Amino acid sequence: MNLKGSSILSINQFERGDIENLFRIADQMEPFAQRKKITRVLEGAIMGSMFFEPSTRTRISFGSAFNLLGGDVRETTGLENSSLVKGESLPDTARVLSGFSDIICMRHPEAGSVAEFAAASRVPVVNGGDGNNEHPSQALLDLYTIEKELQGRGRGVDGLRIAMIGDLKYGRTVHSLCKLLRLFNEVSVHLVSPKELAMPDELVEEMRESGIQVVVTDILEESIAHVDIVYSTRIQEERFPSKQEADLYRGRFRLNKAVYTQFCEPNTVIMHPLPRDSRGDAKELDSDLDDNPNLAIFRQTDNGVLVRMALFAAILDVVHLVDKYVEQVPWHNPRLSG
Amino acid sequence: MNLKGSSILSINQFERGDIENLFRIADQMEPFAQRKKITRVLEGAIMGSMFFEPSTRTRISFGSAFNLLGGDVRETTGLENSSLVKGESLPDTARVLSGFSDIICMRHPEAGSVAEFAAASRVPVVNGGDGNNEHPSQALLDLYTIEKELQGRGRGVDGLRIAMIGDLKYGRTVHSLCKLLRLFNEVSVHLVSPKELAMPDELVEEMRESGIQVVVTDILEESIAHVDIVYSTRIQEERFPSKQEADLYRGRFRLNKAVYTQFCEPNTVIMHPLPRDSRGDAKELDSDLDDNPNLAIFRQTDNGVLVRMALFAAILDVVHLVDKYVEQVPWHNPRLSG
Amino acid sequence: MNLKGSSILSINQFERGDIENLFRIADQMEPFAQRKKITRVLEGAIMGSMFFEPSTRTRISFGSAFNLLGGDVRETTGLENSSLVKGESLPDTARVLSGFSDIICMRHPEAGSVAEFAAASRVPVVNGGDGNNEHPSQALLDLYTIEKELQGRGRGVDGLRIAMIGDLKYGRTVHSLCKLLRLFNEVSVHLVSPKELAMPDELVEEMRESGIQVVVTDILEESIAHVDIVYSTRIQEERFPSKQEADLYRGRFRLNKAVYTQFCEPNTVIMHPLPRDSRGDAKELDSDLDDNPNLAIFRQTDNGVLVRMALFAAILDVVHLVDKYVEQVPWHNPRLSG
Repeated sequence: MNLKGSSILSINQFERGDIENLFRIADQMEPFAQRKKITRVLEGAIMGSMFFEPSTRTRISFGSAFNLLGGDVRETTGLENSSLVKGESLPDTARVLSGFSDIICMRHPEAGSVAEFAAASRVPVVNGGDGNNEHPSQALLDLYTIEKELQGRGRGVDGLRIAMIGDLKYGRTVHSLCKLLRLFNEVSVHLVSPKELAMPDELVEEMRESGIQVVVTDILEESIAHVDIVYSTRIQEERFPSKQEADLYRGRFRLNKAVYTQFCEPNTVIMHPLPRDSRGDAKELDSDLDDNPNLAIFRQTDNGVLVRMALFAAILDVVHLVDKYVEQVPWHNPRLSG
Repeated sequence: MNLKGSSILSINQFERGDIENLFRIADQMEPFAQRKKITRVLEGAIMGSMFFEPSTRTRISFGSAFNLLGGDVRETTGLENSSLVKGESLPDTARVLSGFSDIICMRHPEAGSVAEFAAASRVPVVNGGDGNNEHPSQALLDLYTIEKELQGRGRGVDGLRIAMIGDLKYGRTVHSLCKLLRLFNEVSVHLVSPKELAMPDELVEEMRESGIQVVVTDILEESIAHVDIVYSTRIQEERFPSKQEADLYRGRFRLNKAVYTQFCEPNTVIMHPLPRDSRGDAKELDSDLDDNPNLAIFRQTDNGVLVRMALFAAILDVVHLVDKYVEQVPWHNPRLSG
Repeated sequence: MNLKGSSILSINQFERGDIENLFRIADQMEPFAQRKKITRVLEGAIMGSMFFEPSTRTRISFGSAFNLLGGDVRETTGLENSSLVKGESLPDTARVLSGFSDIICMRHPEAGSVAEFAAASRVPVVNGGDGNNEHPSQALLDLYTIEKELQGRGRGVDGLRIAMIGDLKYGRTVHSLCKLLRLFNEVSVHLVSPKELAMPDELVEEMRESGIQVVVTDILEESIAHVDIVYSTRIQEERFPSKQEADLYRGRFRLNKAVYTQFCEPNTVIMHPLPRDSRGDAKELDSDLDDNPNLAIFRQTDNGVLVRMALFAAILDVVHLVDKYVEQVPWHNPRLSG
């Protein structure tokens, strides 16, 4: 699939070759994300950032990625500031807003809403998360991170052994990641959650049909013993019928230094889609692991900028032009120089 | 009137010649809005976008128009995020904020507030809607749309027959449009609303004094029978004393395929300032008309970008320079190429 | 201290020589702030604007200053739109967000929070106000204004006589300004407040230890009689345990035309960090002084842009490059040309 002009709604759109292409574009973006050089290839282009649900990380990541390619961002945050509260249909909103920009990134609390919006939009739409449904750019950055982490060990994604832990029912990032893993060979997945928060059956079915070896369990210790990656997730409180119900599960599976040391293989990579819940009753991923070099959670978010830049460059068809619009960096960014 | 350095507060500022000049500038903006070329004439200029009331469409339209000319946008949305809640007077806010930008676009819930702000501002202020008072850029884009739609039929705005339908009491867009129509000859207007939501008397008086033939009525069918344009509006719930009172009127006048087919002349243009209320009890403009080529509502919002670019270019006095700062468009915008 | 790569957390970081260097850089920024020329030295750089507490003025001032140097701004406003509500720790937020930008400006309701954030950030952080603790850029712009106002009279900051009036307990701007004044010689300060809202003891101690002559009082008239500057402040209602308690103090010390004329020396400069509270029961600085040429309050906010540009230029180490990236201003800004 050529991404030129495409909306990115679901991870199902991608073939393995698409992923590989995209990741090589992401690699190409690294010097720009690290401020070794600047490109202005998207100067004059406008991205509409429509986050109809609270978000800092994903919203800023998309926006910064677009800025790093030289484009401008026009933003909307929160449903209450929108014409949707005046009874406007999503297709109307889409038709209007798509007249103002070249591409739209959107998050919305309802599953399927982004696809409905995209169907009426006149420009490509990138799904930044629709309810408990999908969050494809997160899955892509997760997989990109897995690839890069394993690369250092001379390994690829084929043969991956991964444990996913926590709220597998409402966590859209793990849903999208599981779909993505179906494109690879000899993958084994341990799904660790309270029974009530298990991965939806049809997703488990799909994985098994595609050849993934799936273990569904509620026992943490044995599940993390022989894997390359432990992928921890937060209890998605905001998707639960009530806070009380979420409270039942918070803190049920905790990965911390003691657990890691006792049960994991020495170089097991630790991932989390973030934000992790660091309140006392949660701590699904303890900060006592913060100095463990295998903790990849901040490399994940950094990689997110690369993957989103790659998506923009591919959709707007400027991959081959990025280097033509290069400029030098006159300022000092201490993050990168030391 | 030369718009250089002027605030745009009310449609009353405009003479017929001003409008015509402005619309020719808007025509000039079309290749930029369609991404056939880029201009960076306002590079380094800052627009202050001060929306002290919810808005997506107008806010993003202004912002994108400024970006398309190369400028930056600094934004404030909602009263609660502002120093006004700390007891600051509007003139103080104006004096401060006008030190940060080259032009300010502002929406505010109170009628007259934008003019009060502009009086203290050191840079031009464009009224993006002040309570139920005025919304001049909307009236301008409406008139620009009327002109363009009738142009295809070899007609101009003189001789226009238009029906305005719905909440004519609180709908500031129709107020501003009515004022604007006084500049043209042989115009006839049907004002269709529940008696309680009628166009304010003084506006009707002004129209009649300027020679417009006005019919005030609460019967939809005969009012839309012999007009060029039907202009439908939403019940402005947020301006009513209570939601209950707004509920009395919602859905009272509905334009849909059946009504249009039975009562309108074949090529009657359908307009609406948007958002339209598509909830079941409202539907003042039904989506079953969406495939009617005379439905101009999305052409209206697209035209809004052109008209706002024209206002910025005229106020900041760069009309003659827009083409001097032209660059090529390296990226692909699928909206425009098909 | 070389500011290159530094976070700006507290006014305590600055030596007198640093201040003087910074102010000379601010002077250099004036033609850009006045749109006599444009610089694009920070083109491609991204500032993360993280205002976890309502702010218009400071937020827009920082953003505009960054835009005036050619950079882009990615913004977050309000705690409710952030991942902090999902239980993320401040260090996690810092590590993530600092991967998206080159510098971060941050406001937060809790004292000390910005320093905690900065400790985990990978890019420099500028404190835009942390609870009732500090607001260093405000103190710097205040001092810069004092210097410029007195300059016209052939005076410097040494020997300054200043009266600070109002809420000296919760007003972080006066806290930061007092700390800054310790760097100068022969300064005398009158601290005028209700006893319950007095300047914290340790701050008074620190001032005295550094040689400042401090008078703590609750009598307005005699305190403003022999000073160069009267610095009025608002009752910081939002920091009080309850609105009722704030109401006790609002309007207690009022500076107006009558008081000024009767008690102040003729050229006494009037300052206020803004917003001033212009509601009837407050009016700590009456608008009947608005035509007094010694009212420096709007020169203060204008100076804020210069000082913030200077901070950015120094931190990102582009002071020597600002002029290399100069362009002409094609548009008309009426604020400046008349």
